[in-house]
Amino acid sequence: MTIENKNNSKSTLNLDLSFNPLRGSKKTYKASPNCNGLKVPFRKITLSDTIDHNGKESPNQPLYLYDTSGPYTDPDIEIDITRGLPKIRTQWIKERGDTEELSQSTSYQRNQLEMDPELDTIRFKNSSKPLGAKTGKNVTQMYYAKKGIITKEMEFIAIRENCLAEFVRSEIASGRAVIPGNINHPESEPMIIGRNFLVKINANIGNSAISSSIIEEVEKMVWAIRCGSDTVMDLSTGKNIHETREWILRNSPVPIGTVPIYQAIEKVAGRIDSLTWEVYRDTLIEQAEQGVDYFTVHAGVLLDHVPLAMKRKAGIVSRGGSILARWCKMHKKENFLYTHFEEICDILKKYDVAFSLGDGFRPGCIADANDEAQFAELRTLGELTKVAWSHDIQTIIEGPGHVPMNLIKENMTRQLELCAEAPFYTLGPLTTDIAPGYDHITSAIGAAMIGWYGTAMLCYVTPKEHLGLPTKKDVKEGIIAYKIAAHAADLAKGHPNAIDWDNAMSKARNEFRWEDQFNLSLDPETAREYHDQTLPDEKSKKENFCSMCGPDFCAVRISKDLCNSNTVN
Amino acid sequence: MTIENKNNSKSTLNLDLSFNPLRGSKKTYKASPNCNGLKVPFRKITLSDTIDHNGKESPNQPLYLYDTSGPYTDPDIEIDITRGLPKIRTQWIKERGDTEELSQSTSYQRNQLEMDPELDTIRFKNSSKPLGAKTGKNVTQMYYAKKGIITKEMEFIAIRENCLAEFVRSEIASGRAVIPGNINHPESEPMIIGRNFLVKINANIGNSAISSSIIEEVEKMVWAIRCGSDTVMDLSTGKNIHETREWILRNSPVPIGTVPIYQAIEKVAGRIDSLTWEVYRDTLIEQAEQGVDYFTVHAGVLLDHVPLAMKRKAGIVSRGGSILARWCKMHKKENFLYTHFEEICDILKKYDVAFSLGDGFRPGCIADANDEAQFAELRTLGELTKVAWSHDIQTIIEGPGHVPMNLIKENMTRQLELCAEAPFYTLGPLTTDIAPGYDHITSAIGAAMIGWYGTAMLCYVTPKEHLGLPTKKDVKEGIIAYKIAAHAADLAKGHPNAIDWDNAMSKARNEFRWEDQFNLSLDPETAREYHDQTLPDEKSKKENFCSMCGPDFCAVRISKDLCNSNTVN
Repeated sequence: MTIENKNNSKSTLNLDLSFNPLRGSKKTYKASPNCNGLKVPFRKITLSDTIDHNGKESPNQPLYLYDTSGPYTDPDIEIDITRGLPKIRTQWIKERGDTEELSQSTSYQRNQLEMDPELDTIRFKNSSKPLGAKTGKNVTQMYYAKKGIITKEMEFIAIRENCLAEFVRSEIASGRAVIPGNINHPESEPMIIGRNFLVKINANIGNSAISSSIIEEVEKMVWAIRCGSDTVMDLSTGKNIHETREWILRNSPVPIGTVPIYQAIEKVAGRIDSLTWEVYRDTLIEQAEQGVDYFTVHAGVLLDHVPLAMKRKAGIVSRGGSILARWCKMHKKENFLYTHFEEICDILKKYDVAFSLGDGFRPGCIADANDEAQFAELRTLGELTKVAWSHDIQTIIEGPGHVPMNLIKENMTRQLELCAEAPFYTLGPLTTDIAPGYDHITSAIGAAMIGWYGTAMLCYVTPKEHLGLPTKKDVKEGIIAYKIAAHAADLAKGHPNAIDWDNAMSKARNEFRWEDQFNLSLDPETAREYHDQTLPDEKSKKENFCSMCGPDFCAVRISKDLCNSNTVN
Repeated sequence: MTIENKNNSKSTLNLDLSFNPLRGSKKTYKASPNCNGLKVPFRKITLSDTIDHNGKESPNQPLYLYDTSGPYTDPDIEIDITRGLPKIRTQWIKERGDTEELSQSTSYQRNQLEMDPELDTIRFKNSSKPLGAKTGKNVTQMYYAKKGIITKEMEFIAIRENCLAEFVRSEIASGRAVIPGNINHPESEPMIIGRNFLVKINANIGNSAISSSIIEEVEKMVWAIRCGSDTVMDLSTGKNIHETREWILRNSPVPIGTVPIYQAIEKVAGRIDSLTWEVYRDTLIEQAEQGVDYFTVHAGVLLDHVPLAMKRKAGIVSRGGSILARWCKMHKKENFLYTHFEEICDILKKYDVAFSLGDGFRPGCIADANDEAQFAELRTLGELTKVAWSHDIQTIIEGPGHVPMNLIKENMTRQLELCAEAPFYTLGPLTTDIAPGYDHITSAIGAAMIGWYGTAMLCYVTPKEHLGLPTKKDVKEGIIAYKIAAHAADLAKGHPNAIDWDNAMSKARNEFRWEDQFNLSLDPETAREYHDQTLPDEKSKKENFCSMCGPDFCAVRISKDLCNSNTVN
């Protein structure tokens, strides 16, 4: 296998993507008031003037939106995916003086792979030596937060979220928020996951047995963040998992999550009975040293609870959950992730990898929602959260799944209670089982609601869920549905800045500023294209009506005329 | 203008649609146990056998779903749109002995149009003479319900909704539900709108100044009910409104709603100041005699409340609302729909047209939600509901609009309280303004929630909302999103039969019965197509894995094996 681009040409490593900013947007940075060179990216949308009924012009302030797209949309930064992105955090990490470069990886697997000449053609050539905590040092953001120290990452986030850096610190210290930021992923732009911040979304990518090439996975990641994904999980299960991940990490400005058990199971050729703590441990180190920012760890799947899941209509639908349940039953032993949890903590804190405690017993159908198996596991995850926190390891909790609307709130309430307010990270939930092909919608409903109730990050579901592997188009559909859910949740929670976006859109709509409406849309291309379908000519983009009502009975126009006549008379 | 089909050929009047049932479904009827020939349509999905791990087969019961598609999907009924559908209710209406055939329409407009030779080419040739109530008779379903009489319509609905006919009657008598069933629309299959029944959805069609042909409107209606729309509103504003509506009504098995002010304004050439009660009155009669089942009447837009709407960010976004507000201000007079409300009642009850009291002040952006203007109007609608009920006129109340999630519940609570539990019928609500191109999703979130809280019917929003006129594809996208919202609401409300559908799907999923999964999908074509995109060969439709996990790490398979080994050991 070689690094191939879409045309199977080995030389050109171009992504099949536009690197221009979204139409009508411009990458811009806000500098830290502390004059320390720290600069935070935003997407600036310049708006045209309001022209009132007397022809008088008044300006509209530009809108600055949270920007996940990284350097790709900055025309001043040259992108070369064979070299990777600028390492904006390297200096910050170094300054803290708590890390050291490891002369060699402590992962057996990594060392093996690095010596394998067969991988030369696909290997990312510009990797650094891994960093690790100095002996006796704790390098996590939670450690610093608890000490009362505001890191550069926290300062960056405060500007990004428009809040005080001290607030960021206190939320991290309390465990109510996490900053997934492995010291080996200095390319990442700091972001925060916590219910007192903007609701975040995650997109899953990854090749499978029915594979895509490495370059395609990088492309999917860049595409996902362009569409607005806040983090990306690499769920690869096929060949060359290590190399694929390296390419993704070195080119990703957002945190990358993984489910290490997927790679561990590949290492034992898919034989669940052969899985051992040692194989898994080496996988954790291998991935942590590459820079993975958070790990899904299904440590809450307990031997005693497996029978609860067997009573269900849909059994276990989490891949990791099913593997571990089977391992427990085969060996008649407790889940090794649970029994070795302290050792896992020792690894994670060395690199500041965050836990994403997996919900192996998440319900896979409406009928199984909120059952004994699910809540038994949640209770265990709550206990493990406290263990993780005792190591100052940042921790988020994964949640369901398939849940009817009337049972969603209980998930949030119990999670907050059992897991001491650690951030919740849910897959949907899907509010009905009957719409394969549209599960981005069945789940956006649940996601919006649980986001409002307090979930900090929403894992997207694409239209292909239950049916097949998502294409680029599906990834976009999934992300847009989840950006809607997250923003609707921000509005409902009364996030202080959230409504500015809606207000800018509504004002543009009310004033027939069509170009501004397109530019302010979550998906400017589609908004423009749909308008073009009925009124394609440029002139219509300046008309005081839309094609829905036509020129004669436009409610907005009649209402405006009425308003103006009120003002005049 | 002539009746044209898509190819502009004047002779063939074929709709560009399949009349086959959805793949894997079959039209079937359940007969009334009263042996009165009454038969109620269902969509039957036959399921394949379950084969357990020992190869033992056990049958799965077929699933019977509510079917809105009418005779079009019954291969035993010949469709000829120039003749219209079979009139299944004619005999039932006649038996009640309360109606008489009018020798001539009492609408000036209708009589004019019928004499116009220029309309010969587009006129529906098979129209009947209108029926009206005999002098002194009240023909509404509410009238009969209050008298304790169970009509054939109620009996039909009881079978359709799987409940007791007496329950249907009592809900109609109390005003908590309505059966839109104009005596001049005998082609319609009775259906009920009320929060103690399945949540219904409505799709809007209709030509505009940027027109489509009459045949295209019939086609859109047939397409909408095939996708699952429970009622259809004809919102035409262009030419030949009367004739278009006649073709739609004669070919529609679902109730048709209209907003009569749209046609009234056409009659005065768009000059709002020229609108009069007389023109509007004649329009009501014209439409009622054709068979329109429910009228949106913006009688709650009061002169005194217009200033409240002028203070808003988005003003008035209801077309009817803006026309009436302007009329009030121009004439410095109270809304003539309000002042003539009793006379409107006299017309509606003569044909059993239901009121859909319009929300002319529905909020048009997030910032305007739940404001003074909106609730002032709702209070007026509550008063008018009681007036309508005093005439035994069935009444539903229209609702917003644009509402953030945290303000949705208040809409429902206030509506139930102010309108004495008359059914609520909402447009979405959209939970954010920022996603033009995806407003079927922004609004499906709000629709699902308000449906759960008690809204009886959800008016769909298509992806083209705010941008352009929906195509057939957009209509389908909007309907599917709303079928999801309605079903998610049914599940959350604990509707006794709703979960059967989800359970059938989940069982098929758990047993890798792929064909059954496709057939059980809300949109079987799309589900199959998506599966084909990754695993196109027929063999894969029998595989015990999907393309998401691949053959080796399928959670469902691992979980099943585990379950089986539990059973065996």
